[in-house]
Amino acid sequence: MIFSFFDFNKEEPIYIQIEKHIKESIIRGLLQKGSKLPSTREVSEILKISRSTVVTAYENLESEGIIESIKGKGTFVNTIAKVKEEDFDIKWDSRINTYASTCEDLDIIKTELPWERGMISFKSIAPDETLFDIEEFKRAFLNTWSFQGEKILNYGYAQGYKPLIEYLLEYMANKGVDIKGKDILITNGFTEAFDILINSLTEPGDTIICENPTHNTALKIMRAHGLNIVGVDMTEEGMDLVKLENLLKSNKPKLGFIIPSYHNPTGIVMKGEHRRNVLEIFKRYSVPLIEDGFNEELLYSSSHVPPLASLCGRGNGVIYVGSLSKILFPGLRIGWILADKKLLGTLESVKRARNIHSSFLDQALLYNYMKSGAFNKYLKKVRKHYREKYSFTSAEVMKNIPNEFIMGEGGLHIFVKLKGIDSRKVLEGCYKRGVVFTPGDIFYTDGSGKDTLRIGFSKVRLEDIESGIRIIGEEVKKIADK
Amino acid sequence: MIFSFFDFNKEEPIYIQIEKHIKESIIRGLLQKGSKLPSTREVSEILKISRSTVVTAYENLESEGIIESIKGKGTFVNTIAKVKEEDFDIKWDSRINTYASTCEDLDIIKTELPWERGMISFKSIAPDETLFDIEEFKRAFLNTWSFQGEKILNYGYAQGYKPLIEYLLEYMANKGVDIKGKDILITNGFTEAFDILINSLTEPGDTIICENPTHNTALKIMRAHGLNIVGVDMTEEGMDLVKLENLLKSNKPKLGFIIPSYHNPTGIVMKGEHRRNVLEIFKRYSVPLIEDGFNEELLYSSSHVPPLASLCGRGNGVIYVGSLSKILFPGLRIGWILADKKLLGTLESVKRARNIHSSFLDQALLYNYMKSGAFNKYLKKVRKHYREKYSFTSAEVMKNIPNEFIMGEGGLHIFVKLKGIDSRKVLEGCYKRGVVFTPGDIFYTDGSGKDTLRIGFSKVRLEDIESGIRIIGEEVKKIADK
Repeated sequence: MIFSFFDFNKEEPIYIQIEKHIKESIIRGLLQKGSKLPSTREVSEILKISRSTVVTAYENLESEGIIESIKGKGTFVNTIAKVKEEDFDIKWDSRINTYASTCEDLDIIKTELPWERGMISFKSIAPDETLFDIEEFKRAFLNTWSFQGEKILNYGYAQGYKPLIEYLLEYMANKGVDIKGKDILITNGFTEAFDILINSLTEPGDTIICENPTHNTALKIMRAHGLNIVGVDMTEEGMDLVKLENLLKSNKPKLGFIIPSYHNPTGIVMKGEHRRNVLEIFKRYSVPLIEDGFNEELLYSSSHVPPLASLCGRGNGVIYVGSLSKILFPGLRIGWILADKKLLGTLESVKRARNIHSSFLDQALLYNYMKSGAFNKYLKKVRKHYREKYSFTSAEVMKNIPNEFIMGEGGLHIFVKLKGIDSRKVLEGCYKRGVVFTPGDIFYTDGSGKDTLRIGFSKVRLEDIESGIRIIGEEVKKIADK
Repeated sequence: MIFSFFDFNKEEPIYIQIEKHIKESIIRGLLQKGSKLPSTREVSEILKISRSTVVTAYENLESEGIIESIKGKGTFVNTIAKVKEEDFDIKWDSRINTYASTCEDLDIIKTELPWERGMISFKSIAPDETLFDIEEFKRAFLNTWSFQGEKILNYGYAQGYKPLIEYLLEYMANKGVDIKGKDILITNGFTEAFDILINSLTEPGDTIICENPTHNTALKIMRAHGLNIVGVDMTEEGMDLVKLENLLKSNKPKLGFIIPSYHNPTGIVMKGEHRRNVLEIFKRYSVPLIEDGFNEELLYSSSHVPPLASLCGRGNGVIYVGSLSKILFPGLRIGWILADKKLLGTLESVKRARNIHSSFLDQALLYNYMKSGAFNKYLKKVRKHYREKYSFTSAEVMKNIPNEFIMGEGGLHIFVKLKGIDSRKVLEGCYKRGVVFTPGDIFYTDGSGKDTLRIGFSKVRLEDIESGIRIIGEEVKKIADK
């Protein structure tokens, strides 16, 4: 009898376990169409549970049409007979288009050496979640809940949750951006914002100009959309102005893409004067810019550096993409685009066509969390923590890894240029010793940068930073000495 | 003095209000670079608040670089001077590509008559949020929280939250789908799932075959991607088999798209035999199918109807797209694709390139909610409620609206075909009387269906259904009598 050897667990309600057990028995062929089930009384006696629990299970299955009770006769299995296997099989490999296969070819989760348990990994530049103050977050949830509850769980607006939009507009205004004639669209992080922009403002074959190196996710998106990517070398100050001007002259780029603060991967922060110069050149060639806003909250020195978007006055030539994911709750996937109002209206329709809107619950939670002052408190705490970790890691790198130079002024990673040594060879050796990092060539537009590497330390313990960097240094020296 | 007329509200922490006030004063020019701020003691005296509150505000502003305290001299405004307005302005209109402008042209939020406060609207087919059990949802949050807390707030996997994936695989297996060699990708609802599939498996100019009428969002996505859409007329039973065979013969479609249960907009449920026949034909022509799974939970009659995906045995020719949004928490944006494992691996990379992953918090919440049995309880409650509302609305429609036929077997909407009357003309008259509905032509692939309309009643009160349907009927008769 199908309940003879049935054991229930303590996690799920018993009636659900009974329903599942009956369904499984049908799938496995232990019960066939027309098979008679034990009565609810029999089951309750055998399993020593209340009869009403079994009755509930049977009623549910009956309303799903899986079993049928016939008065005076009993309860029988009723599922449709699978006539014969249709065996409708397709070779999907040949049907995947270029866009999708490019996304896969450039998916570093698949192409790079994977982290394995026990390894010291410098790959991640995600924030350290043990620093998230979850009590405050829980409070934000309970506040959101008592205030709005079920409304937030139904469909919302593509543009986003209004209070969050207002909050972010003010946040941007406080950074000196002139928000008149502009508006904000909430997206699932920087990745979606950038994908929406490329999707809406370019065609395959268009030229886009960016820093070299730059954010690998942005490179992936640009490549997957078939863009011609022109990279501008960087100096310590940021984009090389002379090279920028020459490349703008000889190409006709549709757009530019820049990461002026805490550049990924170099960590460079463009100073005020350099920002104005870069902007001036783009303006002169009428090439609009997408700015990856880092959110200067992680600035370790106290000189306030304004977004490029704040330097074009009332003008709309810079589209600002914001995201808190570098420092706060990346799992929620909340970012934003600040742009010209009319353009934003179109982008809103694109967003609606892609996935209607970002989770309203998450937007409301984030809004509550930030408005309560918890965000500022968190920032104060982590700024100190990350600054110390940055200094520590910096010192370890300088002490142990022979390099041509080290770049970065803060943030959650350090960029190292080796002296003509292939960082992937170093990685091979490190991997065998339980250490991984991100080889720098994935950030370059033109296949160069083979002698660079990015070290993310945000989630690594101090003792592991110490031993991990030491190991990297040893592996570099091994190859240098050959 | 800038705090002379400063009033604070009771919502935000006071130190935040002080910071904002100072920033605003700078933006408005009341304070300039170099202006001296009142001392913290002065501010605390004038506003009659504790000095430490003011000190906190000043310290925050200083760490943001906005003000600067010089020992022995005081505190001064430090923001960078905006040198001169760059005025970098772009005409964005001409830069928007065809994809984006198509998304906007087909955005019914923008193109259709908007609902206004006080109107009776039959546009929505979203579930009624007053039926969501928010206590259970809150419990799900607290359970998720105590169990996983901060981990969920950091980056997750593109494929999705593992327990939810396991749960949904079992859910699909219980529907009779053979899940061997298949896997699940979590997406932001049906919309994102469909967009990812079209984005990855088609090129502009490809042919896709679907029902006529069909889901307008799917039509929008197919059009925005430049597909050639071939619509197959429907009978009361679903897709017309003869027309389907002919169109498959004369076209070479890349894919098919079908909504076999609670078809949007007609509400038709394809019966078992018809499903097998449709599948057989697609199989014969080797055209794979995307199935919009409705989740038969809302089936009002109790005969179990299996997904098309369960009728192809071990084969992978049917890609199943699932979503709970039709009945549960659409605001969370959680849906899924069930497909061949290798294909799914590629789609996972596409998802990662679009927005990395769907909110892990929301996935964990949904999982907890469903696992606790709350979902089943909710379904029992709402099934009864919606069934009654469906019967009521059905009766009102039959009583009041002269029609050629009414379609639908349940779900949250009713589809009406008028006798040669333009439903948009009816809509004009209704709009003036405070009633709106969705004109049916937006669901047709070929511009037909001008005499149809969809009535969504899920969120409308019974008395409004009664008067609203009566008004629609009157407007139809007015035009018929002309």
